[in-house]
Amino acid sequence: MLRALPCALIALLTGSVSAAEITTIPDAAVKQAIALRDQALKDGQAYALLESLTTEVGPRLAGGVNDEKARNWAIAQFKQLGFDKVWSEPVTFPKWVRRSESASLVAPFPQPLAVTALGYSPATPKGGVTAPIVMFNSLDALKAAKRDDVKGKIVFVSARMKPHRDGHDYGIGSPIRSRGPAIAAELGAAAYVLRSAGTDSHRLPHTGVTQWKEGGPRIPAAAVSNPDADLIEAALRRGSVQLKLQLDCGIEGDYTGANVIGEITGSEKPDEVVIMGGHLDSWDLGTGAIDDGAGVSIGMAAGALIGHLPQAPRRSIRVVAFANEEAGLYGGKAYAAAHKQEVSKHVLGSESDFGSDRIWRLSASVKPESLPAIDKMMQVLAPLGVERGMGAGNGGPDLSPIHAEGMAALSLTNDGTRYFDYHHTADDTLDKVDPEQLAQNVAVYVSWAYMAAQADGDFGSAPGAFKQNGDDD
Amino acid sequence: MLRALPCALIALLTGSVSAAEITTIPDAAVKQAIALRDQALKDGQAYALLESLTTEVGPRLAGGVNDEKARNWAIAQFKQLGFDKVWSEPVTFPKWVRRSESASLVAPFPQPLAVTALGYSPATPKGGVTAPIVMFNSLDALKAAKRDDVKGKIVFVSARMKPHRDGHDYGIGSPIRSRGPAIAAELGAAAYVLRSAGTDSHRLPHTGVTQWKEGGPRIPAAAVSNPDADLIEAALRRGSVQLKLQLDCGIEGDYTGANVIGEITGSEKPDEVVIMGGHLDSWDLGTGAIDDGAGVSIGMAAGALIGHLPQAPRRSIRVVAFANEEAGLYGGKAYAAAHKQEVSKHVLGSESDFGSDRIWRLSASVKPESLPAIDKMMQVLAPLGVERGMGAGNGGPDLSPIHAEGMAALSLTNDGTRYFDYHHTADDTLDKVDPEQLAQNVAVYVSWAYMAAQADGDFGSAPGAFKQNGDDD
Ligand SMILES: [Zn+2]
Ligand SMILES: [Zn+2]
Ligand SMILES: [Zn+2]
Ligand SMILES: [Zn+2]
Repeated sequence: MLRALPCALIALLTGSVSAAEITTIPDAAVKQAIALRDQALKDGQAYALLESLTTEVGPRLAGGVNDEKARNWAIAQFKQLGFDKVWSEPVTFPKWVRRSESASLVAPFPQPLAVTALGYSPATPKGGVTAPIVMFNSLDALKAAKRDDVKGKIVFVSARMKPHRDGHDYGIGSPIRSRGPAIAAELGAAAYVLRSAGTDSHRLPHTGVTQWKEGGPRIPAAAVSNPDADLIEAALRRGSVQLKLQLDCGIEGDYTGANVIGEITGSEKPDEVVIMGGHLDSWDLGTGAIDDGAGVSIGMAAGALIGHLPQAPRRSIRVVAFANEEAGLYGGKAYAAAHKQEVSKHVLGSESDFGSDRIWRLSASVKPESLPAIDKMMQVLAPLGVERGMGAGNGGPDLSPIHAEGMAALSLTNDGTRYFDYHHTADDTLDKVDPEQLAQNVAVYVSWAYMAAQADGDFGSAPGAFKQNGDDD
Repeated sequence: MLRALPCALIALLTGSVSAAEITTIPDAAVKQAIALRDQALKDGQAYALLESLTTEVGPRLAGGVNDEKARNWAIAQFKQLGFDKVWSEPVTFPKWVRRSESASLVAPFPQPLAVTALGYSPATPKGGVTAPIVMFNSLDALKAAKRDDVKGKIVFVSARMKPHRDGHDYGIGSPIRSRGPAIAAELGAAAYVLRSAGTDSHRLPHTGVTQWKEGGPRIPAAAVSNPDADLIEAALRRGSVQLKLQLDCGIEGDYTGANVIGEITGSEKPDEVVIMGGHLDSWDLGTGAIDDGAGVSIGMAAGALIGHLPQAPRRSIRVVAFANEEAGLYGGKAYAAAHKQEVSKHVLGSESDFGSDRIWRLSASVKPESLPAIDKMMQVLAPLGVERGMGAGNGGPDLSPIHAEGMAALSLTNDGTRYFDYHHTADDTLDKVDPEQLAQNVAVYVSWAYMAAQADGDFGSAPGAFKQNGDDD
């Protein structure tokens, strides 16, 4: 879609910036950032953290058996890494539980299917739901369907995502998963199945949350793998097909987890924070290496590098391991609710939540007067292969709520070509992480974060400052 | 390992061939083979057959619910394709059944594992087997183990296969799967788990048969996926690890299936046959597209092209859809037992059972006097990218028993670079088959088979003629 030019850019183009207000990065800070960057490229800390998290904790479904274990892991790591303040802030959400799931074509060609329930799907009745399939090739086609064509049937929405560096086909797959089930439910469908929102061809379906309308109908909702979707389509080319879906899953009351926060206290302006991190929860099928153990590990490792400098940074470095991003940004929303009064003190923020392949773009939502400081950052980042994105940056999923309150933010875009091969599947495991590219991510984060902490001047954080901005991602 | 020169080659080199005995391919047959080859490259028949088999029948575990359905499918297809003789020959084997399987690390880091039982594995006791892991990096290391180090433990053998065009690392993985469990059982192990014999990094374990010594001890035996094997190794680097394995599977008496055979009757020498095909059974996890729906489809499509010629071939073209290759070559052995009296009439044979990526090599076990005829075949095959292999050819798994009786045979080697990414996993599905490369396979099979059927002279088939030969594969 067409986007408005970010307001920062407009201001610069129209020459409304006075020299006195310009935010700059002191030369010494640029030099130190370069040293940190180069140190990060050789540092195995983030990989070691990720190996530890995926091995010793593993899958981290929000509210599940490993939720508290993961938080204890994060607290212990923050302390070990030298963060001088470590604390937790409660996050409450409806706890969804997956118990079992299966599906099969039952007629005319009986075959088992690789299936996974979507987050917040209700269970099927015991014995499952068996009904004819009605297929749609897009969410729009489903929206346009007549109730008579859908009622009592299993809606199957099948649209293939292709891989792209910026992952933009998730814009196709994600709404089919998150919004499709509610639409099908309103039309009287018995259940909902989608072709996985993924770019791979493996028998590993992609889970993810689905959204219900408050008080609206809810139906069992699941994803089949891409090869299984191919099979269903092949069967449908021959005529009517009956599918059986059995899901045992659902909401079991509320759960209170926490955002776990580590801080390197600043020497001059300890109440002003530069913020980064990732979400600690993951889907339960894999070990949450790329989504989002990587983000947590990158933030921790970048923060630790700054913390180990002989001289503390001027501002504080805050790293957040967010609770329950997956089921609806609960951690990020709780953080914004708890900290919106201090939004002006959140100098600049960016979360990592798009894997850990090479970062190739920096997009900024900052005040125009701070663009020269962003240019300085780009000088340090360009040798890492990072280009300047001309769109806005919302700071990543979990920082988008506090960005919406007015925090200046960066978006650092990873190469997402293979991200949706593994995203939300059992295949999200440590072997998918390239240690070298992970180190490049740490180098990017430590560079901008350190420079932001040392900047003379700010990036425009203030209540309501960035409400109009969209995001590149 | 070092191989002896095939006897055919030695004979040629030593000049012991007299011109009168030379087997040749008439020029008209070469011309017709070229036309068939080029027709095959444009023909979608094999792909249509494979799409039909994987969609309408699906997984084909020998003796399972789809065994008879697959045979009926093959009979119907042979008839439809114009094979004028279609029949079945019984094959009996112990029927192995898979009911359920699961595994997890239980201490010190509880995590679920992606696991699959091996064919002919017994079940665990109810509640599973829980025991400490003892790891070995090779079969030799396991063989050298002391009973005290293994007794009561779960043996884990972890050796990584790398991809190669000729798939030779299966020589590492295959014996770890097929022979490891019996060795561990003799040493008193409680159960056996291997790193999958596969070259991928997906959470889809590779099944396959394991072999027990007659009257020897049997223990539950399973494979974990490569990422799960990585995880077990990561946990073991931290100390002792307890694994829990639950398998419900085992042998349920005998089952009698059948080799399904279609024939295009020859016009001059109907009792002499050129034979090709594949195995109709598959493992149950996938739909058996590359292993070995492809082989069956290639043989059927190649046979059909010859059958549709205005003039019947001189010799008969026989295509066999073999029963139960997977659990121990039952179909191939039954065929040899039933037909060994007619081995001299089996002019030349080759089975396709290594996927359907491009064929790049032809290896022959034939009498020296027929090498000029093989050279003629090579002239037709070279434009398809096929090179002449200097090793022997055993005709593929299911034809190796009749080859051992004395049938002249070719081995046509596919590019196996990605074969072991999918082999024996849930990922063996139609999307892994490239229609263009599949057509190249049909072009190869139709070419040599037609020329063999039209040859003046034979290829040396006779009782015991090729007993000394090994095979390139
Ligand atoms: Zn995420
Ligand atoms: Zn996610
Ligand atoms: Zn096979
Ligand atoms: Zn096989």
